[in-house]
Amino acid sequence: MFDGFETPCLILDTVRLRRNAARMLQHCDAQGVLLRPHLKTSKSVDVAKIATGGRMSSVTVSTLVEAAHFARAGFDDLLYAVGITPNKFDHVDGIMAATGKAVTLCLDSPEMARALAASDLTAPVLIEVDCGEHRGGLSADSDALIEIGRILGSQLLGVLSHAGHSYATDRVAEVKRVAAAEVDAATMAAGRLREAGMAVEVVSIGSTPTVLHAGSLEGITEVRAGIYLFYDLSQFGRNICSLEDIALSVLSTVIGHNRAAGVMTIDAGALAMSKDIGANTFLPNAAYGWICKTETMKPTGLAVTAVHQEHGTVAVDDPVWYERLPIGSTVRVLPGHACLTAAGGYGAYHTTCGAVWPRVDGW
Amino acid sequence: MFDGFETPCLILDTVRLRRNAARMLQHCDAQGVLLRPHLKTSKSVDVAKIATGGRMSSVTVSTLVEAAHFARAGFDDLLYAVGITPNKFDHVDGIMAATGKAVTLCLDSPEMARALAASDLTAPVLIEVDCGEHRGGLSADSDALIEIGRILGSQLLGVLSHAGHSYATDRVAEVKRVAAAEVDAATMAAGRLREAGMAVEVVSIGSTPTVLHAGSLEGITEVRAGIYLFYDLSQFGRNICSLEDIALSVLSTVIGHNRAAGVMTIDAGALAMSKDIGANTFLPNAAYGWICKTETMKPTGLAVTAVHQEHGTVAVDDPVWYERLPIGSTVRVLPGHACLTAAGGYGAYHTTCGAVWPRVDGW
Repeated sequence: MFDGFETPCLILDTVRLRRNAARMLQHCDAQGVLLRPHLKTSKSVDVAKIATGGRMSSVTVSTLVEAAHFARAGFDDLLYAVGITPNKFDHVDGIMAATGKAVTLCLDSPEMARALAASDLTAPVLIEVDCGEHRGGLSADSDALIEIGRILGSQLLGVLSHAGHSYATDRVAEVKRVAAAEVDAATMAAGRLREAGMAVEVVSIGSTPTVLHAGSLEGITEVRAGIYLFYDLSQFGRNICSLEDIALSVLSTVIGHNRAAGVMTIDAGALAMSKDIGANTFLPNAAYGWICKTETMKPTGLAVTAVHQEHGTVAVDDPVWYERLPIGSTVRVLPGHACLTAAGGYGAYHTTCGAVWPRVDGW
Repeated sequence: MFDGFETPCLILDTVRLRRNAARMLQHCDAQGVLLRPHLKTSKSVDVAKIATGGRMSSVTVSTLVEAAHFARAGFDDLLYAVGITPNKFDHVDGIMAATGKAVTLCLDSPEMARALAASDLTAPVLIEVDCGEHRGGLSADSDALIEIGRILGSQLLGVLSHAGHSYATDRVAEVKRVAAAEVDAATMAAGRLREAGMAVEVVSIGSTPTVLHAGSLEGITEVRAGIYLFYDLSQFGRNICSLEDIALSVLSTVIGHNRAAGVMTIDAGALAMSKDIGANTFLPNAAYGWICKTETMKPTGLAVTAVHQEHGTVAVDDPVWYERLPIGSTVRVLPGHACLTAAGGYGAYHTTCGAVWPRVDGW
């Protein structure tokens, strides 16, 4: 079905995508929490419509270019989940003024709370809480939490945490422990703000593994997750999804056989796949991606073992592959990390339903 | 000079860029070879004009999107240095027809030579020779070399090799050995084709290290190099450039202090910097990039020690840095690998001369 496609290009399996989206929506419905899908993986309006079940609201973004893109497409209640700084105030203000859509910000310091309070920007704010990842966020028991809440006043909407360290394990028991700690940190922070007399409407947590494996979500109002829409070898290696759940692949052409060196070359290299090798932590042969048959998506056992900017090198241990995959034939490569592979500069997805769906990259 | 810039964004120091470009042009002039700059690093017409010394011709590209972009901008004699396959014939034909500019192709198999000969595409061709990198190319002493030459007939323009394995060392003596082997492989292949009665006009080698350290370029007509325009920590760690030669940096904003965890967070993460950690092979503390002062470009000793999609984590060993780099302040980050950092989705360079120079990404 991909005859004549110029490569490399992204292929998005919409059957898998819709199944992944529906499953997560049902999971969150059953848990009684709002699913606020993270659109940083797909950066696509078409995917976002599926992810929200047609709701067209309550989404998460990681850049203001995404925020503007989705707001213009009609999405409301956008959460920009990266700490805000004053050099972005005008852009946020411009998006809200031009589209009339609400953008929620997050921050974790009294300095930024004061800068925001002193500005004309009236966007609501979530205070970021560190639940153990030790990236952004302040401690749920810190004095600064209350101080920030007081500075924000009526702009305070709630709290947010992100258990990115849930990716550091492939054991469900450990994910459950991380998820419980994330729930504890977020609800503790919300509780302290409420005890201090402040209204906390939103208690937001997220990461696909913790959303799937959290025991109780008591006190949580919404969850953020993104990679579940596409999945990848990182998630497969961590036992978060099956191979048949992975909706994203890179269509690539075999551009050379180097029999003397025991390799073939494909036109999906470092830019097409990304140099993310995190999948190898729990799937040691993930390399830069698995080579699958174009039509059936069955793994061949081959992988992209080295990458240069535009060249992917595939180690070949059985010469039969030179016959099965002649120069000019195509393969589909399962990505190690779908978010970074999709951001390689493709600009669009070719979907298995025949449509081309644009995506918005950059800042 | 970058007050109010929204971040992350690419900053290109045009003083350094022009100095790097002039130095390489002089070097190649002195060696009596044509410099065919590789534009895969910059993907920018403005940079290409400087790289060619205003010549507007004889450049190397790594995607057909680049070929089309530079041909439309008036560049002639473009070499697409990635093995061609039939699914790209129409695109090449379209570029040549629309712009009237010449695009040279490369290949390394009788199959592709036959496919090209059977097509309407009349583009000239370089045969790729493997000089030891073991990626693309065939052996200079292979029978297939002569077979391909005969199939190509009048479309045969010459031979091409790429010593990408010159990056595997930081010792000049080893680079010299690799460079000599590259020259030998290319000239041997050219010699064999000529002995078989074929005209070989172009003998093309390239990689910044081998171009700089080749002893004799006897028999070589042109060299290809790209990273020398920008340089980066990979090249610095390999003793190919000085720190003051690095022309590309990422302007980024400090978005959080997590004193409890001993880190600060900046808004340049995996997409802004790339996940390429190759610089660490010879510069073990390169991490994902070095944090420099915005105005002076002096290294602070801090580095981007971990990356998430939009977050860069900076380990802070001295609390004084929280005072020196308050939340909302900016830093400039030296990239580990400039080609991949620049391809993060920025779309343009902000230059130190005040201009904004677009770049063309994707396929």
